[in-house]
Amino acid sequence: MSAFSLNHVYESQQFDRSLLDIVFSTADEMKADLQTRDRQHADALKGKIMASLFYEPSTRTRFSFESAMARLGGAILTTENAKEFSSAAKGESLYDSTHVMCGYADVIVMRHSEPGSAKTAAEVSTVPVINAGDGSGQHPTQALLDLYTLKDSFSNIDGVSIAMVGDLKYGRTVRSLSYLLTKYDKIKIYYVSPDVCRMDDDIKTYLTQNQIEWAEEDDLTKVLPLVDCVYMTRIQKERFHDPEDYVHAAGKYILDLKKVQMMKADAIIMHPLPRVDEIPQEVDQDPRARYFEQALNGLYIRMALLKLLLDQ
Amino acid sequence: MSAFSLNHVYESQQFDRSLLDIVFSTADEMKADLQTRDRQHADALKGKIMASLFYEPSTRTRFSFESAMARLGGAILTTENAKEFSSAAKGESLYDSTHVMCGYADVIVMRHSEPGSAKTAAEVSTVPVINAGDGSGQHPTQALLDLYTLKDSFSNIDGVSIAMVGDLKYGRTVRSLSYLLTKYDKIKIYYVSPDVCRMDDDIKTYLTQNQIEWAEEDDLTKVLPLVDCVYMTRIQKERFHDPEDYVHAAGKYILDLKKVQMMKADAIIMHPLPRVDEIPQEVDQDPRARYFEQALNGLYIRMALLKLLLDQ
Amino acid sequence: MSAFSLNHVYESQQFDRSLLDIVFSTADEMKADLQTRDRQHADALKGKIMASLFYEPSTRTRFSFESAMARLGGAILTTENAKEFSSAAKGESLYDSTHVMCGYADVIVMRHSEPGSAKTAAEVSTVPVINAGDGSGQHPTQALLDLYTLKDSFSNIDGVSIAMVGDLKYGRTVRSLSYLLTKYDKIKIYYVSPDVCRMDDDIKTYLTQNQIEWAEEDDLTKVLPLVDCVYMTRIQKERFHDPEDYVHAAGKYILDLKKVQMMKADAIIMHPLPRVDEIPQEVDQDPRARYFEQALNGLYIRMALLKLLLDQ
Repeated sequence: MSAFSLNHVYESQQFDRSLLDIVFSTADEMKADLQTRDRQHADALKGKIMASLFYEPSTRTRFSFESAMARLGGAILTTENAKEFSSAAKGESLYDSTHVMCGYADVIVMRHSEPGSAKTAAEVSTVPVINAGDGSGQHPTQALLDLYTLKDSFSNIDGVSIAMVGDLKYGRTVRSLSYLLTKYDKIKIYYVSPDVCRMDDDIKTYLTQNQIEWAEEDDLTKVLPLVDCVYMTRIQKERFHDPEDYVHAAGKYILDLKKVQMMKADAIIMHPLPRVDEIPQEVDQDPRARYFEQALNGLYIRMALLKLLLDQ
Repeated sequence: MSAFSLNHVYESQQFDRSLLDIVFSTADEMKADLQTRDRQHADALKGKIMASLFYEPSTRTRFSFESAMARLGGAILTTENAKEFSSAAKGESLYDSTHVMCGYADVIVMRHSEPGSAKTAAEVSTVPVINAGDGSGQHPTQALLDLYTLKDSFSNIDGVSIAMVGDLKYGRTVRSLSYLLTKYDKIKIYYVSPDVCRMDDDIKTYLTQNQIEWAEEDDLTKVLPLVDCVYMTRIQKERFHDPEDYVHAAGKYILDLKKVQMMKADAIIMHPLPRVDEIPQEVDQDPRARYFEQALNGLYIRMALLKLLLDQ
Repeated sequence: MSAFSLNHVYESQQFDRSLLDIVFSTADEMKADLQTRDRQHADALKGKIMASLFYEPSTRTRFSFESAMARLGGAILTTENAKEFSSAAKGESLYDSTHVMCGYADVIVMRHSEPGSAKTAAEVSTVPVINAGDGSGQHPTQALLDLYTLKDSFSNIDGVSIAMVGDLKYGRTVRSLSYLLTKYDKIKIYYVSPDVCRMDDDIKTYLTQNQIEWAEEDDLTKVLPLVDCVYMTRIQKERFHDPEDYVHAAGKYILDLKKVQMMKADAIIMHPLPRVDEIPQEVDQDPRARYFEQALNGLYIRMALLKLLLDQ
């Protein structure tokens, strides 16, 4: 499997374009393998153990990783309750927990509320650590599956124009995706959000430094006809001081079927899920709706990462 | 496996007598296979994944399903915490959760507090959904294992007389079992309960329409000598307005060894478990006590359903 | 596997020296097997099911058992929530829970808050029960792995001198380890603790009756140069009436690098983990620090027990 040089996956910054290519082509291979009856990779990780160490529950992400491991024939140890480790009462450090846990498993998938915790764990661990979300920090496998969904839809990510819509200030996924898009050429990003949750300057500066075209816009309908992808996110009520503002903002950023009709015929709609009401269910039948496919792409990406990290 | 035509199992009403026959003969086959050293079905579901989606914990039911899957060589993803999905905070619909989850598993076993939720999930899911209890609604695999226990004891269910005892108004199991007994001939049902928790009229009307003989009785001792099966259930304190009434009622419906002696020699005692004190431990040694066997029958029934749904 | 005569493992008292020898040599075999690429025991328990019945969460212990089972190719049913079984609301007895559970699994690993519960479960169960800690009672696999760590370090446990430090009154591990050391010759034990948490008389009397030399000491630095092993445990704040006393005591029993230098060059430091601050992280690099190895030995011991109980 040649040039996959990572021992851990804790942040998007670890990936350059050649690593992304390896991950995506391995994901393609996994996807194809799952469609065969006589699966070639069904026992690829037989005898290996994955520990799901979730310090906060996230059934969707955990099941996606565990399904990936099971589809490759590996075994799973799981907890949604890992914070019991580091409880005030017992006071054990993440350092000690990781040190012990890496004796029991061949790969650790970790979800933690503290930014940077996956990287800390990776420094101690003798086995690969994969970050499944560390608070307001990173969620690199989500960023990879988002990018993979673009690649899957347009075959070439270069040249794609994308609108990111909703809560851009606090949204971990849109930040990571923006970051990774700088690896590609002729990207154009539109940030569409209410004033209170605009994309932070650090990302915008980074994009400019990397010759990525970007613009801000608060009117979703203006942007819809222009882009290849509309990436929707939830707008959270608690960001708004005045409940009136929330109702107004939420209404403006709902992508209903009428707005969908303003999009290009071959454009796509993405969403990291869970959604609340920013995409009504009526949109699900539109061929542009790709969010459930996107969730499924998480399986292929996680299979690819597990295989690349464990089966070298 | 020929004529097993179901894609999902969400309610007892899906089963007619020919489907019941297929389930029971497959359960027989599973039971026999487990007793062999060189098990023929040990890898029947190798490479398949079952997701246990429990929106409320029920260790017994969950383990019964997961043991069934493991005995057939399948893999398991599990949560007792699935309600985190649909939390007020995130607000995701069961529709979306199911849509995502069916990409990660080959069969979904769901426990939910909301009646009808398993059927809703089945409508969306691209993989089989099995209802493991939906609130006050259905618990079809319990009804199947109850019926299978009768069949296992009397070889022919036709002609069986059964007393259902305890909380008949709120007891999901006695309602479903009553319903399924209409598929058989010459059944006689005695409903034995305190006044406050008598069987509802809908079931009694349904029985009459289907030519099933039934009677109501509040004196357990009168019925004991007449029946082939005494199906005990818990009487819950909170149903009674006056605590005195509860003590009186509970006392009347305790099946102690003295009362057991009033039963026919070849009659059987069933209980869906957990029990509290309606059957004292002294009864366990009596050969008529079949409630632990009944729990074990749950394993065979669930193996049968998994095999029929996944290995066609 | 000859003379392993136990059907269950619920307390240290079940082990005599010949049983300990069998467990330790099997653990050696497991450890060696894990280091081979073409593992001989990878499928030793294929088709077997272990149920982790944790009435209170303990991710570390649970993962250690589950990793052991997975390394031998077995399947796992798991709950950290087993107390839901015996909830006041449902009121089911451990007797009934065990009775049902032993139909679903080939071995039950149980953690419970009630002393004696594992033994109670073993009396009912038709499959092996392993005690993974029952409140203030026993934690026999911890005692076995502690002893195995001594054996692993000194090849012969006879003649070992050991200081047990910290909370000796409430510490389950030091009590069990003291008990098992009576099976060996020429042992010397130093109990080093603040006044409020000295070792209870029952153990001291038992040691004397079994010709084991022991002494009490409150100055850790005096003992350090004398012993082959320093077994550290946490001192819990809540044992002290006066917070001042705690600060003073905790300070005296911290094994920092300066104190470590007073130990023999070939002595070892053990700790059952989790640690708080009684061993600072600076000590981890010292070759005498063996607590992470000790945790790993838990894996080999548990593999050995599972194999001995299930693969006879």
